Amino acid sequence: MLSRSAIQASRAAFQRRGMAYKAPLRDMQFLLNEVNDSAAHYEKLKHSGGDEATPDVVDMILQESAKFSENELAPLNEASDRIGCKQTGPNTVITPPGFKDAYLNFVAGGWQGLSFPEKYGGQGLPNSLALFQSELTATANWTWTMFPGLSKGAINTLLAHGDELVSEKYLHKLISGEWTGTMCLTEPHCGSDLAQVSTKAEPIGNGKYKITGTKIFISCGEHDFTDNILHCVLARLPNAPAGIKGISLFSVPKFKVEDDGTLTSVLNGATIGRIEDKMGCHGSPTCEINFDGSIGELIGTENRGMNHMFTFINTSRMGTAIQGLAASEGSFQASLAYAKDRLAMRSLRGAQNPGGAADPIIVHAAVRQLLLFQKCISEGGRAMVYDSAYVGDLMADAAVSGDKALAKKHDERLAFLTPILKGFLTEVGLEAANMGIQVYGGHGYIKSNGVEQIVRDVRIASVWEGTTQIQALDLLGRKIMLQKLKPINEHCGGLYKQAWSSFTSPASTKYGSIRSHAAQLAKVSAQWHATTYRIAAKAGSNKDAIGVASVPYLMFAGYVSLAEQWLKMESVAAKALEKNPTGPDADFYLGKIEAANFYFENVLPRTKGLLPQMTAPIASVMNMKVESFAPTQ
Amino acid sequence: MLSRSAIQASRAAFQRRGMAYKAPLRDMQFLLNEVNDSAAHYEKLKHSGGDEATPDVVDMILQESAKFSENELAPLNEASDRIGCKQTGPNTVITPPGFKDAYLNFVAGGWQGLSFPEKYGGQGLPNSLALFQSELTATANWTWTMFPGLSKGAINTLLAHGDELVSEKYLHKLISGEWTGTMCLTEPHCGSDLAQVSTKAEPIGNGKYKITGTKIFISCGEHDFTDNILHCVLARLPNAPAGIKGISLFSVPKFKVEDDGTLTSVLNGATIGRIEDKMGCHGSPTCEINFDGSIGELIGTENRGMNHMFTFINTSRMGTAIQGLAASEGSFQASLAYAKDRLAMRSLRGAQNPGGAADPIIVHAAVRQLLLFQKCISEGGRAMVYDSAYVGDLMADAAVSGDKALAKKHDERLAFLTPILKGFLTEVGLEAANMGIQVYGGHGYIKSNGVEQIVRDVRIASVWEGTTQIQALDLLGRKIMLQKLKPINEHCGGLYKQAWSSFTSPASTKYGSIRSHAAQLAKVSAQWHATTYRIAAKAGSNKDAIGVASVPYLMFAGYVSLAEQWLKMESVAAKALEKNPTGPDADFYLGKIEAANFYFENVLPRTKGLLPQMTAPIASVMNMKVESFAPTQ
Repeated sequence: MLSRSAIQASRAAFQRRGMAYKAPLRDMQFLLNEVNDSAAHYEKLKHSGGDEATPDVVDMILQESAKFSENELAPLNEASDRIGCKQTGPNTVITPPGFKDAYLNFVAGGWQGLSFPEKYGGQGLPNSLALFQSELTATANWTWTMFPGLSKGAINTLLAHGDELVSEKYLHKLISGEWTGTMCLTEPHCGSDLAQVSTKAEPIGNGKYKITGTKIFISCGEHDFTDNILHCVLARLPNAPAGIKGISLFSVPKFKVEDDGTLTSVLNGATIGRIEDKMGCHGSPTCEINFDGSIGELIGTENRGMNHMFTFINTSRMGTAIQGLAASEGSFQASLAYAKDRLAMRSLRGAQNPGGAADPIIVHAAVRQLLLFQKCISEGGRAMVYDSAYVGDLMADAAVSGDKALAKKHDERLAFLTPILKGFLTEVGLEAANMGIQVYGGHGYIKSNGVEQIVRDVRIASVWEGTTQIQALDLLGRKIMLQKLKPINEHCGGLYKQAWSSFTSPASTKYGSIRSHAAQLAKVSAQWHATTYRIAAKAGSNKDAIGVASVPYLMFAGYVSLAEQWLKMESVAAKALEKNPTGPDADFYLGKIEAANFYFENVLPRTKGLLPQMTAPIASVMNMKVESFAPTQ
Repeated sequence: MLSRSAIQASRAAFQRRGMAYKAPLRDMQFLLNEVNDSAAHYEKLKHSGGDEATPDVVDMILQESAKFSENELAPLNEASDRIGCKQTGPNTVITPPGFKDAYLNFVAGGWQGLSFPEKYGGQGLPNSLALFQSELTATANWTWTMFPGLSKGAINTLLAHGDELVSEKYLHKLISGEWTGTMCLTEPHCGSDLAQVSTKAEPIGNGKYKITGTKIFISCGEHDFTDNILHCVLARLPNAPAGIKGISLFSVPKFKVEDDGTLTSVLNGATIGRIEDKMGCHGSPTCEINFDGSIGELIGTENRGMNHMFTFINTSRMGTAIQGLAASEGSFQASLAYAKDRLAMRSLRGAQNPGGAADPIIVHAAVRQLLLFQKCISEGGRAMVYDSAYVGDLMADAAVSGDKALAKKHDERLAFLTPILKGFLTEVGLEAANMGIQVYGGHGYIKSNGVEQIVRDVRIASVWEGTTQIQALDLLGRKIMLQKLKPINEHCGGLYKQAWSSFTSPASTKYGSIRSHAAQLAKVSAQWHATTYRIAAKAGSNKDAIGVASVPYLMFAGYVSLAEQWLKMESVAAKALEKNPTGPDADFYLGKIEAANFYFENVLPRTKGLLPQMTAPIASVMNMKVESFAPTQ
């Protein structure tokens, strides 16, 4: 491990490189207070208990999270990639330098419990605030963020499905951050196809079970942060039905815990086989865990494990969407600093920096296209995430107040939005991160400059928690076709309304682009809507129509969603500029207007290429015989 | 270094993983003998001296290159990434295990000289054959391939511009492979903007110069393969004009060489400052070289160094295009093997493998889309490269036979094609390589499975030898606008002819898709053609129109070029199938037909998204003030 002075040296080197992370607080405040009315939103949630999310509290939370991310987490990021995690025994994994101290500071500040119930020691604030906070830590240091992120998934799962005994036993420690949590799903042979899970759970009485089997790809499955770790494990009871309907969920701690929550020093038979050597994410250990008669409790109902685990999976999918957005933001910040500083070539319009050896590369159209794309994904992705986070708040609120129908309505909306967020933002987040290397040129390929690490770290985002391909099938197959198109009808209905409202808003008369953008949003929404019907009609005679359409459909949905956010943001910015065209925030608002122009003219047109792919002839994808792919190899 | 037995163990592990590389010889023969008539082509070149490229000789060369690549190079690839290169002193770099032995075998077989003149010990075969060979070694082991690849660039540069003294002094050893070559362009402050080169060359009489300065990013700048290394170095003579017109090119050996070519043991003042720690390409050392009064000779004419260096750069750009294609091919082979083997989920059509726990993932539409895209890029990219390679053959042939006008015509055509090959194939090659991770799922992120290495290795391809953005400006600005649109008029003329010929060919009546594809090719060619005029018109009043259009223009050009190749290939395949619908090659030809269907229905439509980007309002890219990109950061 690095000494304290080595960490300080690494921090100084990091700041010299000009890559100091700066939390985008102004943009978050724009979303909270201008695009949305968070004061009113949080006012509505007041009764859900806990601290009140007044503007002051929100501001304090963002400020403190920003400081922690900028000063504590960001400087650890490069060394965590270089040094990684080391396994030193069956139950010992050493995390990167500084990670543990940062985690203990995080816990001491009570941050893990921010959005969880007071009943278990949390602060009871809305989840949307916790997501703002996650983005800040994720951009500063993605792999560190995974540790508290996985605990959140375990907490949500226990809150939703755990009985009183299990919840009392574990939730206090998870919410305080004294212990962390993991999700143990995959096994060597089954990947995302959890119907093939073969880990066994044998009842031994007293509500206890013996768990035996091997799980792989367990993020943060072992570490040196805390005294204990709670594994949430999928396993099969004896005589359980085959396939997905025979899987149950169990709570399996690393060290045994008394029923009253007292920690023992007795290991529970869960050992680490190895940690994986990966492309990136070196700061978080990816573990193979062997459960050998480990004792656990049932979470929720027998054979409903997959249903319960989806609480965890959906938490992680939202976290992964943030991973995509954070990679874009991190790469954008580094690229922008570099593009302002680096001199190369002259502008096609003639020298823009005649006193210098060359012009800064930000003058070149092709470099600006990279930076503008990154800005569109970072800020537009942020707006997408927080839009959904508010739906999550409303759902939680309805559940607390006992309005089941309303909770279900919000839950369904969130279920519709989640695959778009996860699938789309990880794909475009990777693209935006890759652009960072392009802006840096050859220097981007050198590890010490940091932008290639962002690419390696985010590459897993479109794979884990269900690949983009699985998100796409979830969206089009499960969330739309199985619901008989109701969610898309409702969603597009909302988009038409938004487009019309922007089209007719007073600001649009001054900023002509808003009218044109509103018309474009209406058009792509209608294309999306109509194409859904076309696919449904084709699928009536051939289900493969759904498979063929799914990935371009998901991407189309993502670009429309970004258009929705950019139209909303530029409308607010236009109004603010009309009111005060030369105020201190004018550059900020002009940035929104110009980025929206870039988005609608240069990014949204990608939908024109996706449209024919969604309805490509089924045969053009399905007809190739397996033998014809590469017949001589 | 690994011992021989360790190398054997690594080779065995490699084969167990099922990632054994299989040279796509059938596909190469298809291009050589069916799509093109290589026998006639090579017959025409007979008089250029050297061995005759008869079908037997060609076949022997491909077979031997395949064996060498499959058996010698591919097994070294994984360890070269893991172990990398190590600098042990100012003039000592240890290459990865097995690299040197493989190189010595390559040299012993006379492979370095394959396409170079007999006069200097080469075999005088056409360059197109050497490019086929490069693809085989590049897919098996990219970083090993860089060593002989850079020598080729140095050889071409000396052949084209070196005087008799310099050529005699170095070419024999470079062509035999006893020495290797490098290109020394970039310096810490200048990247691709070589106008900023500040390395100094001071004449000391007798045709000798003292070279002083620091070069960075010198691939294979130091190694343990050979007794000497020849650096081709850009530097400024005293009183040279400022900028690009004041740069000259020098030959600077690592060890001093007598004028008669005798090697001395006197170092020449060129030392390695460091080797870079990179995202990938660990098998090839990227060196900082400090020239401290190193003695060299002028290559070519004073102050024409950039012109001369373009011979090297163009060789490297073609090599980099092959890097993109090779990454796609390597990832495709691994992905296909995995997709046939890995069981997950059931087909939307119902179980296709009812006896197994699940269906192999190749049944799923979204997985097939990944594999088909990889096939389209690999085989279509190969066809693009060899089409250009033939133009290169014809150019070399015309030069040898003294037909300067014809040589110039072919040279100009190659100059037009090169940025498309380099820019487009590296971008889609990276995309195809990334799909390998997607097919493997979480396992694709684990280093030992090999597909993530392909992504890391190829990521530099769209950066070095001029970024995609620079290729795009080269194509649209220099190669088209500066030539007053003549090259695009000629090129599109050829495309219209090809489309019409396929549209009216007899095979098209049986395979209806050919008619439709021919019509699509005609349409996108016309769009490309017409949009060029539109951009030219806009650029008349605002040069930024070129910058804004350039990258989508380059990508559009690439997709049209792939369409051209796929139409050609499916036409040949259709004819072969009509003749013999059930022969042993039927699966191979059906693979071409189905891949073409996939390409035209699922990939070419991307052009619809690129079209509006090419003519996006200039303001949508250029208007954002620098202060507005991220005003609060």
